[in-house]
Amino acid sequence: MLGKMLANVREKNPLIHNITNYVTVNDCANILLACGASPIMADDVDEVEEITSLCAGLNINIGTLNQHTIPAMIAAGKQANRLHHPVLLDPVGAGASTLRTNTALQLLKEVQFTVIRGNISEIKTLAMGSGSTKGVDADVADQVTEQNLDQAVAFAKEFAAKTGAVIAITGAIDIVADAKTAYCIRNGHPMMSKITGTGCQLSAMTTAYLAANPTEPLAATAAAVCAMGLCGQKAQERLGEQDGNLSYRGYIIDAVDHLTPDELERGAMYELR
Amino acid sequence: MLGKMLANVREKNPLIHNITNYVTVNDCANILLACGASPIMADDVDEVEEITSLCAGLNINIGTLNQHTIPAMIAAGKQANRLHHPVLLDPVGAGASTLRTNTALQLLKEVQFTVIRGNISEIKTLAMGSGSTKGVDADVADQVTEQNLDQAVAFAKEFAAKTGAVIAITGAIDIVADAKTAYCIRNGHPMMSKITGTGCQLSAMTTAYLAANPTEPLAATAAAVCAMGLCGQKAQERLGEQDGNLSYRGYIIDAVDHLTPDELERGAMYELR
Amino acid sequence: MLGKMLANVREKNPLIHNITNYVTVNDCANILLACGASPIMADDVDEVEEITSLCAGLNINIGTLNQHTIPAMIAAGKQANRLHHPVLLDPVGAGASTLRTNTALQLLKEVQFTVIRGNISEIKTLAMGSGSTKGVDADVADQVTEQNLDQAVAFAKEFAAKTGAVIAITGAIDIVADAKTAYCIRNGHPMMSKITGTGCQLSAMTTAYLAANPTEPLAATAAAVCAMGLCGQKAQERLGEQDGNLSYRGYIIDAVDHLTPDELERGAMYELR
Repeated sequence: MLGKMLANVREKNPLIHNITNYVTVNDCANILLACGASPIMADDVDEVEEITSLCAGLNINIGTLNQHTIPAMIAAGKQANRLHHPVLLDPVGAGASTLRTNTALQLLKEVQFTVIRGNISEIKTLAMGSGSTKGVDADVADQVTEQNLDQAVAFAKEFAAKTGAVIAITGAIDIVADAKTAYCIRNGHPMMSKITGTGCQLSAMTTAYLAANPTEPLAATAAAVCAMGLCGQKAQERLGEQDGNLSYRGYIIDAVDHLTPDELERGAMYELR
Repeated sequence: MLGKMLANVREKNPLIHNITNYVTVNDCANILLACGASPIMADDVDEVEEITSLCAGLNINIGTLNQHTIPAMIAAGKQANRLHHPVLLDPVGAGASTLRTNTALQLLKEVQFTVIRGNISEIKTLAMGSGSTKGVDADVADQVTEQNLDQAVAFAKEFAAKTGAVIAITGAIDIVADAKTAYCIRNGHPMMSKITGTGCQLSAMTTAYLAANPTEPLAATAAAVCAMGLCGQKAQERLGEQDGNLSYRGYIIDAVDHLTPDELERGAMYELR
Repeated sequence: MLGKMLANVREKNPLIHNITNYVTVNDCANILLACGASPIMADDVDEVEEITSLCAGLNINIGTLNQHTIPAMIAAGKQANRLHHPVLLDPVGAGASTLRTNTALQLLKEVQFTVIRGNISEIKTLAMGSGSTKGVDADVADQVTEQNLDQAVAFAKEFAAKTGAVIAITGAIDIVADAKTAYCIRNGHPMMSKITGTGCQLSAMTTAYLAANPTEPLAATAAAVCAMGLCGQKAQERLGEQDGNLSYRGYIIDAVDHLTPDELERGAMYELR
C-alpha cells in the first residue's frame, strides 16, 4: 500500500511550492526531482499566493526565517488552505529562539496544516506553546526510544487530534500519527544525522507524497518517511572506504531517484500502534 | 570556431558578477570555476554597481527574486550597460507570477541585455508581455520539436530583432539566435531535466563565454549551450548503476572542468537556420 | 598537539552559529558535521542573540551581506563577546566594495574577534582601513611567497597585536599568527582554488576548533588550517580520471569526516616563525 503512494508521485509529477531555508534548499529541489515531483521556490510575499496556486502542495520550513519571509509563509499557507492544497510545516529550531517558536505557533494558528514534521523537541515546543499537552504528554522524553515509545505515540496522537494535522516525529524511531493511528517506523540509519538537511529533504518529499495522494495524508506521510529511511539504509550500504558524509548525502538522493514502489513496499519497516 | 570561445574563457579567466537565486547558486559558482572563470555573488543594492564594475560580465537570474534584490538587479544592469559589459537575463519562472513577469519586463525595458536565456515558455511570456509577438509567433508551441522548429526559429529571430539581444531558448532542441542567424543545437540529454539548475548553470557559464568573447555574442552563446549539452552527454555516459540525479549533477560540472576546446569543437552538434 | 585540538571537537561536539553567505552555506554545514561539530544558521536580527547564546561559537562571514544581515552580525557578535564565546570574522570580498570594507571595519570596531581569517588582500584591506599598517606592512605583497614570507609574518603579527585577534591569512602558504608567534603552514593543494567556498568552509571549521579549545585560539586555528589543507591533499590523491572540481569538493568534506587526530598530528606541515 505504501508503494502505491510513491507510484502516484511518479505518475502525477506534482509541482511543489517550497518556502524553505537557504542551507538545504538545493537538496530539497533535487530530492523532489528524484522522487518524481518538481520544485519551485518562491518566498516574496508579493508572489507566493500566485505560486502556491499553480502548485499541488506547499512546504513551509522555518530554518532561516526572517522578517520578510514570515508574512510570505502565512500568506502562502492561507492560500493553500483556500485551495485545499496540502500544506506541511517543518518547524526547524522551534524552541531555539523566541522568533522561531512564535512564528511556528502563529503559523499553527493561522494555517490548517496537513502535516507537521519535526524532531521530538520541536514538536514538544509546539505542543506546549499551543497549550495542548497535558498529563502524560508534558513528560514525554527528548528522544523516542523503545522504552518510551507508547508514551510518545500517545503524545503524537493527542497533538494530531488537537491540530487536525498528521504529526510526524522523526528520530531513531519515527512516529507518524493522526488522532487514532500511529505508524512506528524503524527504517533509517544513524549516519543520516551526519549530514545537514535530511529532515528538510524529508519535509519536501513528504509534501510531494501528500500532493499525489491527497485523500490519504497519514499513509502518504508514512510512505515518505519509510522511503527516506530506506534510502538512508541503501546509501549506507553503498559507502566506499573513503566516502564520508558528503558522499552519503548524494547517495541518499541517488537512492530516492532509483527507489521503486515495489522496493518501498517490501523495505518499509513499520508497525501500527 | 566554438572551441576557441572556450579557449578564451580559460585564457582570460573573467570574473562574473551573479545576482542569482539561492537554490542553485553553489552550482553556478562551481561551474564558473570549472569552465575557467571566477564567480562573485552580490545582491545588495548598495554594492552591486561597484561589484559589477570590477567584473567582466553580469548574470541576472530572477529565480528567487524579492523586493530587495529587484532594485539591485536593475542598478547592476544599468551599470553594466554604462561600462559596456555583457549582461545576461535568465527570466526564471516568468509567467508563473505577476511579480516575475513584471520584473523581467521591467528589466528588459531598463537594461540592454546581451543575451536572454530561458525555456520557450519563459521567452514567450517576455515576448508577449513586451508586445513583440505577432503573426506566427503568438502561436509558437510550448515545446520546440523538429516539427515546429522553423516556427520557433522565426520567433527567436523576431524577438532578437526586437530586443537587440541574442535569444537562447533551451529545451530538447536549443535555439540560439540573433535577428539573422540561428544555431539549432542538438547536444544534451533528457536526464538534465532531472536535476535542478542546469538552466541557471548554463546562464552563469554563458556569461563567462560572453565576457571572454565580447565581440561575438552569438557564437559565444552557442558555444556555451553546446558545451553544457555535451557535458550532459558525457556525464550521462559516466553514470554507474547506483548513480542517480545527484551524482549526475556533479558529473556534469566535473565534465565542464575537463572539457577542452578541441572536444567542444568536435562534439558540438548544431546547424544554422 | 594539533591532533588534540581535533580530538576536542569530536569529543565536545560544539554547536556553531553561522551568519554566512548563501553560496557556500550547505558546504559549511556539512563540514561542521564532518569535523564533529553541529551547525545552526540564523541571520534575522530578532533571533541572533538568542541563537548565539545557545551556541559555543560564532562564525560571521560577509560573503553575501545585505542591509538586513549586517545589524544581525553586529548584534550576534556583541552577544558572543558578552558571553565570552569565540567569534570569527571572514571578511569575504573586503576591498571589493565600499559596503564590504565598511561593514568589516565596523565589525572590527564593535566586536572583539577571536580570529580573523581571509586572503592577504582582504586582510590588508582591513589593516589599512583600521589604520594599523605602517612601515613594512603597507608594502606587503598581494601573494604570500617564500620570498616575502617574513614580511607577511611581520604584517600578520602586527595586525594581531592591533586587533587582539589571531590572524589567519590563507593562500599558497598559510600564516596563522598572534602578536608573538606565527605558524607558517604548507598543507593544501592548488586545486582547492578551483572550488567555491574552501575559505568559507575553513572559517566555519575553525570556529568549531575554537569552541572546543577555548583557551588556545592560536593552536586551534593552526590545527583547523592544517586539517583543511591536509584534507585538500588527501582529496586530491583520491581523484579519478573523470573527477573534476565538483567531485573534489565532496572528497574534501569526506576527508574531513575521516580525519583522525593522529593523522592530523602527523600530516600537519608547519614551522613557527
